[in-house]
Amino acid sequence: MDPSQVKIPPMKDLTVDNITENVHAINSLCEDERLKYILERLVTHLHDFARETRLSSDEWMTGLRFLTEVGQICTEVRQEYILLSDVLGLSILVDSIDHPKPASSTEGTVLGPFHTHDAEEMRAGEAMSHDPEGEPLLVVCSLRDLQGRPIEDVKIDIWETDSTGRYDVQRADRREPDGRCIMRSDAEGMFWFHAITPVPYPIPHDGPVGKLLKKMRRHPFRPSHMHFMFEKEGYDHLVTALYLRNDPYETSDAVFGVKDSLVVDIGKAGPEIAQKYHVPEGHALLTYDFVLVSEAETSELRARNSKIALDKLGRKVKIVNGLPVPDLD
Amino acid sequence: MDPSQVKIPPMKDLTVDNITENVHAINSLCEDERLKYILERLVTHLHDFARETRLSSDEWMTGLRFLTEVGQICTEVRQEYILLSDVLGLSILVDSIDHPKPASSTEGTVLGPFHTHDAEEMRAGEAMSHDPEGEPLLVVCSLRDLQGRPIEDVKIDIWETDSTGRYDVQRADRREPDGRCIMRSDAEGMFWFHAITPVPYPIPHDGPVGKLLKKMRRHPFRPSHMHFMFEKEGYDHLVTALYLRNDPYETSDAVFGVKDSLVVDIGKAGPEIAQKYHVPEGHALLTYDFVLVSEAETSELRARNSKIALDKLGRKVKIVNGLPVPDLD
Repeated sequence: MDPSQVKIPPMKDLTVDNITENVHAINSLCEDERLKYILERLVTHLHDFARETRLSSDEWMTGLRFLTEVGQICTEVRQEYILLSDVLGLSILVDSIDHPKPASSTEGTVLGPFHTHDAEEMRAGEAMSHDPEGEPLLVVCSLRDLQGRPIEDVKIDIWETDSTGRYDVQRADRREPDGRCIMRSDAEGMFWFHAITPVPYPIPHDGPVGKLLKKMRRHPFRPSHMHFMFEKEGYDHLVTALYLRNDPYETSDAVFGVKDSLVVDIGKAGPEIAQKYHVPEGHALLTYDFVLVSEAETSELRARNSKIALDKLGRKVKIVNGLPVPDLD
Repeated sequence: MDPSQVKIPPMKDLTVDNITENVHAINSLCEDERLKYILERLVTHLHDFARETRLSSDEWMTGLRFLTEVGQICTEVRQEYILLSDVLGLSILVDSIDHPKPASSTEGTVLGPFHTHDAEEMRAGEAMSHDPEGEPLLVVCSLRDLQGRPIEDVKIDIWETDSTGRYDVQRADRREPDGRCIMRSDAEGMFWFHAITPVPYPIPHDGPVGKLLKKMRRHPFRPSHMHFMFEKEGYDHLVTALYLRNDPYETSDAVFGVKDSLVVDIGKAGPEIAQKYHVPEGHALLTYDFVLVSEAETSELRARNSKIALDKLGRKVKIVNGLPVPDLD
C-alpha cells in the first residue's frame, strides 16, 4: 500500500491513554462494517483489560505463551480453543445470544470439542455404542415444532462417551467412529436407538486448559450427558444435550452447560415400551420431547434481543444480515 | 476433586445475564490473588465483548480458528502471537504501563517478534551486520542514569534487518546470527559499533496476522529502525528502538512503535569522529544518548500510576509484589 494513501492521523507518541483511539482510527479503514465493529469492541476491551489490571510485561508474555500452547496442542481431533472458551463461560454465552429460545422450545447448550463429521447414518433401533461394558440404554425421542407438529427428516447428530468417560476420538487406536451416529426423524417426528447410560468424565486436562483449571482450583468434570444436534432447512440449528439428574457434578459443570429443562431421569421400560421396542421389561429408558424453532422465529427474536441489549448500553445500532453494526446515520 | 467439596453456588440455568457472575464465583476458588483478579477482569471483558457485539456462533468459530492458526504457525523463530499483540496496540500499551518513564529518560517501545537469545557478544568497534549490500553506518551511543552519570557494563542487545528488510531468522538458510549482537558499555558509559542503515520492511504477513491486516485494509510496514535492549541489575529493563526521521511509514507504523523522542537523523562523520572511530569523513553516523531509570524509581512510579488509574476507575486496590490486586479490607 502506498503510505501516502494512508488517510489516518499521524500515529506517533502513543500513550497509555491515547493508544486505543489511534488503533480504532487505523482499523476504521476496514470496509466490512461488522468486522470493523467487532475489532473496535475487541481492541477497547483488550486495552481496558490491560489498563485495569496494569498488566506487566512478564504476565503479557506468560499470556502469549499460554495462547500459543493452546493453539499448538490442537489437532484434527482435539480443539483446545473450544475447551478454553468452554471453561471461561464464553461458549454457553455465545450459544445463548445466537440461539435465543422462545418459552416451550428446547434450550441449547455447549457443543464441546468432541463433535466430529465422520459419524455414520443409523436406522431407527440400531445401536450407536459398541462398548460391552456400557449399561444398555433405550432412547426414544420425539421432535416437534412450536405448534406441536411433528418434524420429519431432521438430521440428528448424537454423541456420547464410552463407559470409561472417553469419546472415541480420545482413543489412540480409534479406527472408526463409535459412540456417535446420525439419525433422521420419521414421519411422526420420532427417532429411537440403543445407547449406553452416560457417565461423568473430566474434560481433557493434560494440556494448557487443564493447567489453568488446576491453578484456579477448579475440577475438570462434566456431569453425565448425551449430546444432540438438530439440522433441517428452515429450522434454527439446535446444539443441545441431556443431563442425568443427581449427577455429582450436576451443579458444578466445568463448562457451564447444565440447564434445568435439559436434566432428565433414567426410567425403566414398562410392558408397552418393552414390546414396542423389543427390550426386556425394566430396561433402562431415556425419553425426551425436543421442540425446534423455525429460523424465521429465531432470527426475529435474535434481532429483538440485540436491539434491547444494545439500547440498554446506549449504543445506536442497525441490524445488517441479522447482526448489529453501529448506526451512523 | 471431591464434588461435595466444591463450595460454590449451584450453576444451572446460566443465561446471557448471569453467566459472568457465575464464572467469577467458580474462579474465586483460586488462591493466587493476582491471577484471580486477572481472570475476573478477563472474563468480564470477554463476556461484555460477546454481549456488545451479539457475537454469532459462526463468528465465534471463525475467531477460535484464527487463534488456533496463530498458535500453530509459531515456531522457535516466529512468534505470531507477539505480532498479533503488536498490531492490536496491546504490546506498546503493556510496555507503557509496565515501564513508565520519568521525563528525560529514554522511552521504551515494542520488542517485536525478532529478538533471539543466540546473538554473540561483540567488542567496541566491531561490525554487527555482514550484509555487503547494506549502507555502512557508524553507531556511537552513550548510556547514563537520570543524574547524568555514565553506567558501565550494561548488557546491550542490538538487532536490525539486512538491506532487504529481513531479519536473519527469516532466512531459510540461517546458520548463525547476523544483524544482531550483544555489547557492553565501557567505563564512560559509551558503546559503539558498525551496522548498516536501517530500511523499512513489512512485518511477516504471510500468516493469519497478515490476513487480518489485509481485511482491515492496513499496510504491514514498519518504518526503518534499529532495536536496542538494555539490562543491568538495579536498572529497569529497557526495550526500545531508534527510528529514522522522514521514513515513509514514520506516522503509520503497523505496530504503533514510533515515539518522537526516538526519531533520529542519520548524520555524517566530521573530522574528529572520523579520526576517533577510523572511518572516512562523511561516513553515515548515528548517535544517541540513552538514559536508564533505576528499578526503584520505576517501581515507585509504576505503583503511583496504578493507584491513580484504578482510583479513577473507582477500583479499590492494594499493591502486592508491585502489582494491583483488589483490596477487600
